[in-house]
Amino acid sequence: MPTLRIALAQDNPIVGDLDHNADLIRRAASAATAAGAHLLATGEQSLTGYPVEDLALRHSFVEASRERLVRLAEELAADGNGSLPVAVGYLDADGPIGSTSGHGIRNALALIQDGKVLFRYYKHHLPNYGVFDEDRWFVAGHELHLARIGGVDVAFTVCEDVWGGVPFTVAEEAGAGLVININASPYEQGKHERRLEVVKERAAALGAPIAYLNTVGGQDDLVFDGGTTIIAADGAILASARRFGSELLVTDVECPASGGRDIANHSSSLMSVSLHVLSAEPAAIETRIEPSFAPDLARLEEIWEALRLGLGDYVRKNGFKTVLMGLSGGIDSAVTAVLARDAVGGDKVHTVANPSEFSSQHSVDDAADLAARCGLTHIVEPIQPIVDAYLSQISLSGLALENLQARVRGVIWMALSNQHGHLVLAAGNKSEYAVGYTTLYGDSCGGFAPIKDVPKTLVYELATWRNEHAKRLGEVEPIPENIILKPPSAELRPDQKDSDSLPEYELLDPMLLAYVDGDAGREELIARGYEVDLVNRIANLVDGAEYKRRQSAPGTKISSKSFGRDRRLPITNRFREK
Amino acid sequence: MPTLRIALAQDNPIVGDLDHNADLIRRAASAATAAGAHLLATGEQSLTGYPVEDLALRHSFVEASRERLVRLAEELAADGNGSLPVAVGYLDADGPIGSTSGHGIRNALALIQDGKVLFRYYKHHLPNYGVFDEDRWFVAGHELHLARIGGVDVAFTVCEDVWGGVPFTVAEEAGAGLVININASPYEQGKHERRLEVVKERAAALGAPIAYLNTVGGQDDLVFDGGTTIIAADGAILASARRFGSELLVTDVECPASGGRDIANHSSSLMSVSLHVLSAEPAAIETRIEPSFAPDLARLEEIWEALRLGLGDYVRKNGFKTVLMGLSGGIDSAVTAVLARDAVGGDKVHTVANPSEFSSQHSVDDAADLAARCGLTHIVEPIQPIVDAYLSQISLSGLALENLQARVRGVIWMALSNQHGHLVLAAGNKSEYAVGYTTLYGDSCGGFAPIKDVPKTLVYELATWRNEHAKRLGEVEPIPENIILKPPSAELRPDQKDSDSLPEYELLDPMLLAYVDGDAGREELIARGYEVDLVNRIANLVDGAEYKRRQSAPGTKISSKSFGRDRRLPITNRFREK
Repeated sequence: MPTLRIALAQDNPIVGDLDHNADLIRRAASAATAAGAHLLATGEQSLTGYPVEDLALRHSFVEASRERLVRLAEELAADGNGSLPVAVGYLDADGPIGSTSGHGIRNALALIQDGKVLFRYYKHHLPNYGVFDEDRWFVAGHELHLARIGGVDVAFTVCEDVWGGVPFTVAEEAGAGLVININASPYEQGKHERRLEVVKERAAALGAPIAYLNTVGGQDDLVFDGGTTIIAADGAILASARRFGSELLVTDVECPASGGRDIANHSSSLMSVSLHVLSAEPAAIETRIEPSFAPDLARLEEIWEALRLGLGDYVRKNGFKTVLMGLSGGIDSAVTAVLARDAVGGDKVHTVANPSEFSSQHSVDDAADLAARCGLTHIVEPIQPIVDAYLSQISLSGLALENLQARVRGVIWMALSNQHGHLVLAAGNKSEYAVGYTTLYGDSCGGFAPIKDVPKTLVYELATWRNEHAKRLGEVEPIPENIILKPPSAELRPDQKDSDSLPEYELLDPMLLAYVDGDAGREELIARGYEVDLVNRIANLVDGAEYKRRQSAPGTKISSKSFGRDRRLPITNRFREK
Repeated sequence: MPTLRIALAQDNPIVGDLDHNADLIRRAASAATAAGAHLLATGEQSLTGYPVEDLALRHSFVEASRERLVRLAEELAADGNGSLPVAVGYLDADGPIGSTSGHGIRNALALIQDGKVLFRYYKHHLPNYGVFDEDRWFVAGHELHLARIGGVDVAFTVCEDVWGGVPFTVAEEAGAGLVININASPYEQGKHERRLEVVKERAAALGAPIAYLNTVGGQDDLVFDGGTTIIAADGAILASARRFGSELLVTDVECPASGGRDIANHSSSLMSVSLHVLSAEPAAIETRIEPSFAPDLARLEEIWEALRLGLGDYVRKNGFKTVLMGLSGGIDSAVTAVLARDAVGGDKVHTVANPSEFSSQHSVDDAADLAARCGLTHIVEPIQPIVDAYLSQISLSGLALENLQARVRGVIWMALSNQHGHLVLAAGNKSEYAVGYTTLYGDSCGGFAPIKDVPKTLVYELATWRNEHAKRLGEVEPIPENIILKPPSAELRPDQKDSDSLPEYELLDPMLLAYVDGDAGREELIARGYEVDLVNRIANLVDGAEYKRRQSAPGTKISSKSFGRDRRLPITNRFREK
């Protein structure tokens, strides 16, 4: 069997920053050429970043993507990498572009060589669930392209194509000896294992290896976890790149030789097939490269790395130099602060303790202790005089008084942010956001909420893991033990405990997981053994909190594009037209 | 030609409140029976409300919709309206329901008679642009149903079907004498006229009348404007219901008689056709009903009514009794306050003036004058002592100091809201939201922003129109003239004017319309004659403001359903499982 040396660029593009992303591809091409690769692939929409969201509907952006691709081809040739075939993901269009229907716009992959675009493949399976809205933005393609490189017919596919499967069936019929699948697949717990299972199945059916290439990096609320892997027909992992970091994975892969089939007569009615012959003879390889394998990550380390990368890239890609957050002495802000330290460095993390008359001394001390252990800038700004200024004008009690304290803190953080340019981090966890145990415009203030998708029980697990991890490395444990051991409290009234208002988190979190993540109905929860009154109470809290989360979003729409539901743009968008 | 007496229920359902919505249908059926109607149609998803958003993915909600439909059929029979065929819009499913792919879930219409469901039609054209995500929630249907009623073959279609057209082509081939098209079509300026043009075209092609039935009422940020209309084959309007209000439109319509065609042999491969014979003989009508026609609305009255209805329904459907807002003496809060008065009544509108050291006396006076003219509860809460309390602890200047003032106001409004249960209204307009000329967690605080989609120039037009409208009715003009005449200012620093930071709104608004609503690129704006530096400045502001609007939304996602992009639930959701 011929052997191909393939290079897979697991890179971290920025949505909209075409020049930055093109530079990443050029650097990967130079490294791949130096390594003697026969083919370089880059991630899904590596040139535009992913997801471009409704930028896909702006003609000038689609045109900028198309033009930048052509210029990139010329640059690669000028760099001396012209002979290397390079697969680039980008945004294209054919047919009329409709600004509302998205008609004609394509999630595309181009194969570039010798300064020219050899072909343009359009993604066939468009995901339209969860975070994906690709039916909104793109039209599906129906032509598969194979490139004969070093005597191997290589088929090119994009992301969901490997889950949907049609292009793989067509590739098999067309006698492909290797399928490249370029992805921007967002992280979820346990998803990497599911991906590898699917790729194994496809490789077995194909009778040839598959190169699964994933993007890496945080983009708004998504984080792409990398984990690029090459899998043989027999299910063996031939090489793998690390998770949560950039890497150029170069591997020698034995592939079935092209059978010289009559492509035009393949039997599928689902997609047509084109063959592009670049080099029909097997390539010569003098010295085999030793395949590289990424270490496996344990569950909590994987989650920590996802959160760290998501936060760090949000800060960097939005152009912030420093972050600021309230440090209450509780577990949520403790974990958030350590994540921030790990993501951007302790010298860039500013923390503020805002004690009130209900704050315990141990909270104030624990916060200061954590800041000292982690090397964070820490200041104390008591809120009582400001709270009293409000109360001397308006009479408040109960929840209104509790919320006032949280909002005074929020105003202080935002004021410091406006004055000094820090990004404010909100320390809320998924459990409290789910049930609305948080103050709108108070502790929920901030540009990024690093643990917003982490249930409270997992916050504790992560805290314990991070301390143990430090111990294993011989470092100071970042989180004072008292923060992990004491019962959680918002400290907004005397002797308040979370358990006054909510069931224990060990009971609550699995219910939330079933109701929120699993879309289970109340009857289903009751059938699982949860007590009826509790199910009703929690479901009502979750449904009510949905309202709170979206407050100030709505307002009556009277035109084709209001702000909100019908305008979906990425936050980290560096697209600046010339 | 036979004559059918058709009743079209232009009603105002609430998303998720199945019992409330079923009651609306039962009341319409009783009125239709009393009027001697041969057929009653209700709106798209009249039983569930529209849009149900990701509730469509919750099995228990789909099941509740299906069960409620069956029970509604029994109730209609028990009410003595069993012989009346009733078309009901609801949520259905066939095939496996996938929680992520939405597979098998249908946007459905059932025809009910004699306590039974005669057939279930599944919407064929699923809109997936703008505010619509129907590819995410539903699977398209491919079977058209005709019911022979009083010797007329009546075809049933849903909303986008009339824009897409396939079911209408199939209805024509099948010899339909009338097509019912039930809608939940959201208001946009000028859209009603476009709808009528499309219906006219379809009626001409069909050679038979079309009954276009639209929902009415506010639902989150959408407002359905009604305007139900019956159009004959020659384009004549046979009857029309009013805009922005509920109405049962009962009309005698002459329709081509059923040709007794062999439906099974219709030529379309796009949809199959079923015929259900309810009554083959033409119905007897003793006395013809005089057709009723709705008055036309002038442009500004139409917009005002849309904003009033959207606001009023948001308040009512979310269970609020009163609203509260800041009244600055400026044009935006003035128009918002009058809208609120018109929507919920002046006795339910609480306004607060929060003067600072930069507030002019005329602002304070104008606010009090407006409140008095409109019968609003009005209080004055100066913010300077509270601002000073912050400043005695932290040192602020420039924008940070301006934002602090706006945030102190926001905290006061939210505190009063928490204490007394008012819904806070934000008074921001589309121009200032677009360019970010607003304070996050400050003046943007609130549960609903009535004029968030109204550009500043239109705010002025509406103010002038509303005063003239009052004069025509012999009422007091609600808005003091000085508020309309004085130059706009945020009054957050000495002698501040909007024009210090922004171009004149007469110049800005058309640019925003092109860039935001029209997705025009910068080059296109420059080609339209806008100055290069101005285009770049405004486009940068808009792109930056997108970030501000979404602040505190993001946070790294690590599970299948985080809060944010991949969980889309209606705010006004009354679905309470038993």
